[in-house]
Amino acid sequence: MGMTTIPEFSLTESFAVLTRTPASLNVLLRGLPDIWVRGNEGADTWNAFDILGHLIVGERTDWMPRAQIILEHGEARPFDPYDRFAQSRESETQPLEQLLDDFARLRSRNLAALQALNLQPEDLARRGRHPRLGVVTLSQLLATWAVHDLTHVHQLSRVMAHQYRDAVGPWIAYLGVLHCEGHSAP
Amino acid sequence: MGMTTIPEFSLTESFAVLTRTPASLNVLLRGLPDIWVRGNEGADTWNAFDILGHLIVGERTDWMPRAQIILEHGEARPFDPYDRFAQSRESETQPLEQLLDDFARLRSRNLAALQALNLQPEDLARRGRHPRLGVVTLSQLLATWAVHDLTHVHQLSRVMAHQYRDAVGPWIAYLGVLHCEGHSAP
Repeated sequence: MGMTTIPEFSLTESFAVLTRTPASLNVLLRGLPDIWVRGNEGADTWNAFDILGHLIVGERTDWMPRAQIILEHGEARPFDPYDRFAQSRESETQPLEQLLDDFARLRSRNLAALQALNLQPEDLARRGRHPRLGVVTLSQLLATWAVHDLTHVHQLSRVMAHQYRDAVGPWIAYLGVLHCEGHSAP
Repeated sequence: MGMTTIPEFSLTESFAVLTRTPASLNVLLRGLPDIWVRGNEGADTWNAFDILGHLIVGERTDWMPRAQIILEHGEARPFDPYDRFAQSRESETQPLEQLLDDFARLRSRNLAALQALNLQPEDLARRGRHPRLGVVTLSQLLATWAVHDLTHVHQLSRVMAHQYRDAVGPWIAYLGVLHCEGHSAP
């Protein structure tokens, strides 16, 4: 297990994204009219509340708990499955501002905990077991944490744009975000 | 021409998005390591500099100049074509911080000019002529301005995520942003 097993991953670079996401979403979403934050893409799709709720659940139950499982148990103990719908039970009735605050606070706490681990390159190559994907490394988990932020920024911009797909008229032909089909995993 | 020709469009709602985009991009991008802002998706694709440069060109030459053409000439004078590659001549060598500052300043100035027009519902239904799309309305132009922001947030999140497509390992299966094909118009 050397650095060659960690393509393109840098803890500093991942931190840089993970640190910025809550503030960027805060600036984008706080105070927005309901059309942008209540609207979704149709039945059984997510709006901004669902997306923030999902990010909060990840901070509470997924990323750092999984890092701890890798460091303490390696491949011997699979991760707990990620409940992609847990947020619908927790965050449906809260104000958006509360969700933005909660996400920022939890992310900040988790990044402080991650820094306190003082991970070395050999730690980043340590292996764990995903319940469906099989063997993964700590570096892959941390890279996924950052890209997971980006996948939901990507989703959020698409959900917001969807609210104006009629309003843009013939320009729909030129607006790539209105031709995105989501690409979510089953 | 009544409000029925303006599906879902509201000037206030569009303002709310247009006002927030520069600050949200500023929080997301300022100070990020080079991998996230210099990386693109391969030959002839855009990185964060190109995207910001393109947004700046739009502020300078597209949105408000086209609104003025509609208000002054209606369908009689087609818009000037939008040069989607103008930014490569203007912004390649500038620091990202300069581009973020320029975008924020130009957007702020344009939104002040838009507010000063004190547009009424009947103005929003006024028609202009796009050189390729044909007849469009002022409300469609303004809705497109907001969705154009979102299409480039969508693109930016995808371009950033692309830098870690190997680093996430098997999680690539679950990360929708890594399966997005861009959907850009030709």
